[in-house]
Amino acid sequence: MAELRRDPVTGRWIIVSSDSPLRSADLEAEERRPSGGSCPFCPGKEGMTPPEITARRAQQGPPNSSGWTMRVVPNKFPALKIEGNLNRVGVGIYDMMNGIGAHEVIIETPDHQKALPDFQVEEMFHLMELFKERSLDLRKDKRFRYLLIFKNYGESAGASLSHPHSQLIALPIVPKRVAEELKRSEAYFDQKERCIFCDLIHQELGDGERIVMESTHTVAVAPFASRFPFELWILPKTHQSDFAEAGPDLLRDVGELLRNVLGRMKRSLKDPSYNFLIHTSPLEAVQHPGYHWHLEIMPRLTRVAGFEWGSGFYINPTPPEVAAACLRGEQVKEQ
Amino acid sequence: MAELRRDPVTGRWIIVSSDSPLRSADLEAEERRPSGGSCPFCPGKEGMTPPEITARRAQQGPPNSSGWTMRVVPNKFPALKIEGNLNRVGVGIYDMMNGIGAHEVIIETPDHQKALPDFQVEEMFHLMELFKERSLDLRKDKRFRYLLIFKNYGESAGASLSHPHSQLIALPIVPKRVAEELKRSEAYFDQKERCIFCDLIHQELGDGERIVMESTHTVAVAPFASRFPFELWILPKTHQSDFAEAGPDLLRDVGELLRNVLGRMKRSLKDPSYNFLIHTSPLEAVQHPGYHWHLEIMPRLTRVAGFEWGSGFYINPTPPEVAAACLRGEQVKEQ
Repeated sequence: MAELRRDPVTGRWIIVSSDSPLRSADLEAEERRPSGGSCPFCPGKEGMTPPEITARRAQQGPPNSSGWTMRVVPNKFPALKIEGNLNRVGVGIYDMMNGIGAHEVIIETPDHQKALPDFQVEEMFHLMELFKERSLDLRKDKRFRYLLIFKNYGESAGASLSHPHSQLIALPIVPKRVAEELKRSEAYFDQKERCIFCDLIHQELGDGERIVMESTHTVAVAPFASRFPFELWILPKTHQSDFAEAGPDLLRDVGELLRNVLGRMKRSLKDPSYNFLIHTSPLEAVQHPGYHWHLEIMPRLTRVAGFEWGSGFYINPTPPEVAAACLRGEQVKEQ
Repeated sequence: MAELRRDPVTGRWIIVSSDSPLRSADLEAEERRPSGGSCPFCPGKEGMTPPEITARRAQQGPPNSSGWTMRVVPNKFPALKIEGNLNRVGVGIYDMMNGIGAHEVIIETPDHQKALPDFQVEEMFHLMELFKERSLDLRKDKRFRYLLIFKNYGESAGASLSHPHSQLIALPIVPKRVAEELKRSEAYFDQKERCIFCDLIHQELGDGERIVMESTHTVAVAPFASRFPFELWILPKTHQSDFAEAGPDLLRDVGELLRNVLGRMKRSLKDPSYNFLIHTSPLEAVQHPGYHWHLEIMPRLTRVAGFEWGSGFYINPTPPEVAAACLRGEQVKEQ
């Protein structure tokens, strides 16, 4: 059973998996996971995953059969498990709770070799719809306080299987990084009665130098204080706190912009590993009028070293203005 | 000139280096840094570094000559520069300041092949003394608010040169991670009139299962909410906020414990990459009675993936109790 433990000094929660602890003898084994041949996400291998939660099929077919175009399954090695009641306990000065949550895998395509930049507009739209559908379904479970949708692409980004997939984790807490964004954006809203993200979009669109591209409903921007080279955020232009409230036009636009910027990264940066994730408001009854959902893309081009870990203060060798110009195609860097 | 920029949503400061921006064409070059042969930290290559700030020599000799046992030089590619006045400016909703700071390299030994576990007790003591000496010297500069001492060992930890060295960065801000520790430890002190770290040490020594080893003045513990497998903290047993106040007995003990636990990690975990860093109180006139300096060691055994980046919430596959038992040598894992 996994446990959630809280660091008493920073207040940071972590998940400790005690089911199959990584011991020192496993370290080499971890590095050499099987690749290709026996991919559990390929069509015909449906029996290798836990039974599917939902799937899209071009023609009707029974669950867990081939013929699907997208498929959602529970993670076979979940960080958190869905069974049980949530119990919080104190252990001396420490706080802990049991590891209740959900961990799902969204298999994005039956094609093992396909990457998101190769998707059709319609396929990207279906993926965004599926993110929304799972988000609406999981919030019915009142034990959950946050849903995090994310993707690891490439080894440096932590992907352990190369078949195209993204993941969703439902959490019994609001994670620290989101809580920080919420706290400061609400303080800003209290002071100004405006959303800080809306102000940021307004300033960036006026300024232009950090904009990579823009569509009717969304904008892709290299953030002013980018932690990593070529970090990008995709934001809806109109204020919206909760990703699951996005309508079809916006979802289509987000999917298309995401596909486009990932394609630009692939071409300009030699197919880098990347993580993306959706930051949205927590699953609480209270509204967060100052929060604005967005998708953050972080290519893994540099290693995070001791200074960053020690300080929470990042050194970024690529100014976001240079990154945005490069991804807009304004400067030819590959000479 | 480097810039410090603040993310308006999270309040996180980052350093953007605009001197020699990492462009997409540089990505491959970055991966293939020269190794061996022309190491600028080896004896006889003193001219390859900027002029030394200080050095230890067995026999007297002129600065920047060979014959040193430890040597401190400015980083040739500093994240921050020492010249200039600190200017803070607003750019619309954004905050920034110029990149004033110091970035020094402590070359730990003339021997390119030696690692800290191979050091003599006396050499470790001299290294700790040198950390303290630089810390005392740099705080005379009133522009600086924080000094971070850290080491990157191995490629996965971000080390770009393999010659044994650690680093020191003096910052014009208190970094976010330290500010968080300070805030919560001071709130704890206000409430209980006790230091949270002292309470943590008391509970851990009583409990024992997360203790790796103990000496007269220090203890090495796998923290209850370890973010990473085999994360370790070394803490002075007696309360002390500021690393630079450590006396010779304590410094000797810290050096010896650090050498010992790094040796245990090297043997048990197959010479892993690691980062270590010293968290100490900021350079402010105000006292921090609730803060307690400590050294954090983070082996780089797993990759940080999208979930961690997105949430600030870590998944650790190795319970700290298992890690501590393994490093105490209680269980034989390599079968």
